Amino acid sequence: MKYPNNINKTYQKTISYSNRGMDLESLLNQTNQYYLDIDKAVIYKKATPIGIVKMSYENSKKIIEKAYFKEPSTLDYNGIYKGRYLEFDAKECQSKTSFPLKNLHQHQLEHLKRIIAHQGIAFLIIYMNEKYFFLNGTDLIKYLAVNQAKSIRYEYIQNEGYELQYNYNKGLNYLDIIDQILIKENMQNEKD
Amino acid sequence: MKYPNNINKTYQKTISYSNRGMDLESLLNQTNQYYLDIDKAVIYKKATPIGIVKMSYENSKKIIEKAYFKEPSTLDYNGIYKGRYLEFDAKECQSKTSFPLKNLHQHQLEHLKRIIAHQGIAFLIIYMNEKYFFLNGTDLIKYLAVNQAKSIRYEYIQNEGYELQYNYNKGLNYLDIIDQILIKENMQNEKD
Repeated sequence: MKYPNNINKTYQKTISYSNRGMDLESLLNQTNQYYLDIDKAVIYKKATPIGIVKMSYENSKKIIEKAYFKEPSTLDYNGIYKGRYLEFDAKECQSKTSFPLKNLHQHQLEHLKRIIAHQGIAFLIIYMNEKYFFLNGTDLIKYLAVNQAKSIRYEYIQNEGYELQYNYNKGLNYLDIIDQILIKENMQNEKD
Repeated sequence: MKYPNNINKTYQKTISYSNRGMDLESLLNQTNQYYLDIDKAVIYKKATPIGIVKMSYENSKKIIEKAYFKEPSTLDYNGIYKGRYLEFDAKECQSKTSFPLKNLHQHQLEHLKRIIAHQGIAFLIIYMNEKYFFLNGTDLIKYLAVNQAKSIRYEYIQNEGYELQYNYNKGLNYLDIIDQILIKENMQNEKD
């Protein structure tokens, strides 16, 4: 194909338009970077807390010689969108029938409830059966209040969750779902 | 002193009502814990991001064998208060006359501006001349827009900042200042 000025435009043949090989964390990092780039939201993955066992100094710079990862007591991602605080966790689920709640520690669940009580938006993004779901924290809490289960059935995630479509540019555009939730919230507030 | 049931109530004589020896970070951790305990706000210090050089496994548990601290590009604390996103940094300043801006990296400053643009509350808590000051991010930005300075004069921090009083139970109760700021904001919005 010839372009003006005889420039030969070559196409990169190896571009893959699927998300194959990209894990959920990388996908969400891509998505959050996209949101930053278009100035839509400011959302980051938190650094994993560590416990330091041994430290040293190299040219007066601190070096960690031995450390271990601590169990996080909050969710992995947080930030701001349209003035609202949001926090969420990303989970890849191997089971095809139910999401084991051992994936979510007790402290994390309490933290999620606290965020919602303080008018934040808390949710999970779950990769399951090769699909991505957005499960709102309020729906998760409702489920747990009724079901003393150790897992969430896939049907519940399908019915109450929102499926996210992967997009090559936007990644997993979960803020679209938050827009829907904010609209519902406003309608609810106007009714009250 | 005798109490009912002949209980001898003994007083701990070593309680210090000053904050001597407690660094700013410990004070703020105490304050944030107090806010959590009374369910007023959910605010945490972020874990410092690290770059891992070498890892190993002990009983299938990941061990960090060598790592270094990365320069943070965001502020150190964030959380939610009254549904609002807030983020701030804490700085101890040795100079008595001016706060050197090299304490705040370019990425951190850009991040602070971004948070404010997205309707978050961003600020600094500065320990200087043995006093604690709350400096609102909007005032910091105003100062930097006018002054191409490499530091902020102490007078500006005294005049535009809010002095925080240390309290034995509450620590540095900076949310009182945010309440004042939110009231001003609402008054401004009603005027507009």
